[in-house]
Amino acid sequence: MDIALLGGTGDIGEGLALRLAYHTNHDVLIGSRDPARAANKAEEYETELDSRAVETTIRGGANADVAVDADVVVVAVPPYYVADTIEAVAESLDEGDIIVSPATGMDRDDDGFHYAPPPAGSVTEHAAESVPDGVELVGAFHNLAAGRLANLDAELGIDTFVVGEDDDAKGIVTDIAEGIEGLRALDAGGIANAAEVESLTPLLVNVAMHNDRLHDLGLELK
Amino acid sequence: MDIALLGGTGDIGEGLALRLAYHTNHDVLIGSRDPARAANKAEEYETELDSRAVETTIRGGANADVAVDADVVVVAVPPYYVADTIEAVAESLDEGDIIVSPATGMDRDDDGFHYAPPPAGSVTEHAAESVPDGVELVGAFHNLAAGRLANLDAELGIDTFVVGEDDDAKGIVTDIAEGIEGLRALDAGGIANAAEVESLTPLLVNVAMHNDRLHDLGLELK
Repeated sequence: MDIALLGGTGDIGEGLALRLAYHTNHDVLIGSRDPARAANKAEEYETELDSRAVETTIRGGANADVAVDADVVVVAVPPYYVADTIEAVAESLDEGDIIVSPATGMDRDDDGFHYAPPPAGSVTEHAAESVPDGVELVGAFHNLAAGRLANLDAELGIDTFVVGEDDDAKGIVTDIAEGIEGLRALDAGGIANAAEVESLTPLLVNVAMHNDRLHDLGLELK
Repeated sequence: MDIALLGGTGDIGEGLALRLAYHTNHDVLIGSRDPARAANKAEEYETELDSRAVETTIRGGANADVAVDADVVVVAVPPYYVADTIEAVAESLDEGDIIVSPATGMDRDDDGFHYAPPPAGSVTEHAAESVPDGVELVGAFHNLAAGRLANLDAELGIDTFVVGEDDDAKGIVTDIAEGIEGLRALDAGGIANAAEVESLTPLLVNVAMHNDRLHDLGLELK
């Protein structure tokens, strides 16, 4: 399957790109608003994978150019760019393509990080407002520590949550996620349930801030 | 230490009472608005513990009567009763006593459960508005599945999160929580961070609803 990571030059994009290329046979495409930056990062990821005896070609390009070839498009950008990013690639998507939204919204104050969703109720529901007809939206990969993901020596053993309205699309994203070693994908229901998934991220950051030996936290339901 | 569980006849109260009596040396007191019901439940818990060769005396009584003797008072009631319950026992508390708030607010619709905090921002912050001067408030035990807690054969291996403004009080509650075998207490910061803790509960319920083999879920950060 061809998976485009829009904003794939950012930290969560890097983690997903490396893990998908390392653990799965999917073709990974790196998108950015700046195609030269995408190409550079793609080459950097290839070098990292090559050092681990994984020979793979990762193509980088403008978001819309990589979205054209992708079956699944992950919008790995900050929450306030999600809508614009989806709209910028809408013409590049085919019927049946899947958009994956991993972003969450957080504010910080003296106490720590707080969940700060957009008026739609969650970033995933906000993304839904921009998804073109015939394309399905799935929320996933919200609560993954980017640094841990990008460090291919780090074991995961953690869960990610999948929300969406279309069971087939959720199944495809679940399979992609579980192709990553040590990542379990759990169905958290419809998109209306995304807020409870996204608000986990500030909790994980707060706990890491307040407990010396814990950092880059994930979680396992049990 | 003397620990009163107000609303200790309810399901989370039952779980905490049994676990604390089974795993720790604390004295457990069961409170209810109905003292006869508290006494009956206390006897029921004693019988359950006796069947496991734990001889202990659990006293039951009116909320205010058990709060008088307690160092730590857990307000194990539904969120809409939290303020009234604290106000009803305020005269029974001594300076230095600790109130623990485990409640969370949820709505249910066709999609699942959703976090529905009171205007204060979280149930824990709502509770804080009723806590008398000289008494400390700590949020803890928010995300524990009552049935799993009450089943002393069930292994835990899970985390609870502690929020509060007073480090000493948090330390005491952390020690109480970690006296329960398989329960780790993690510092999640100040009371302003309670919403991110409380909103985990609807997520755990939603995941249990949508994944056949998962129920009575807890979580471990890792």
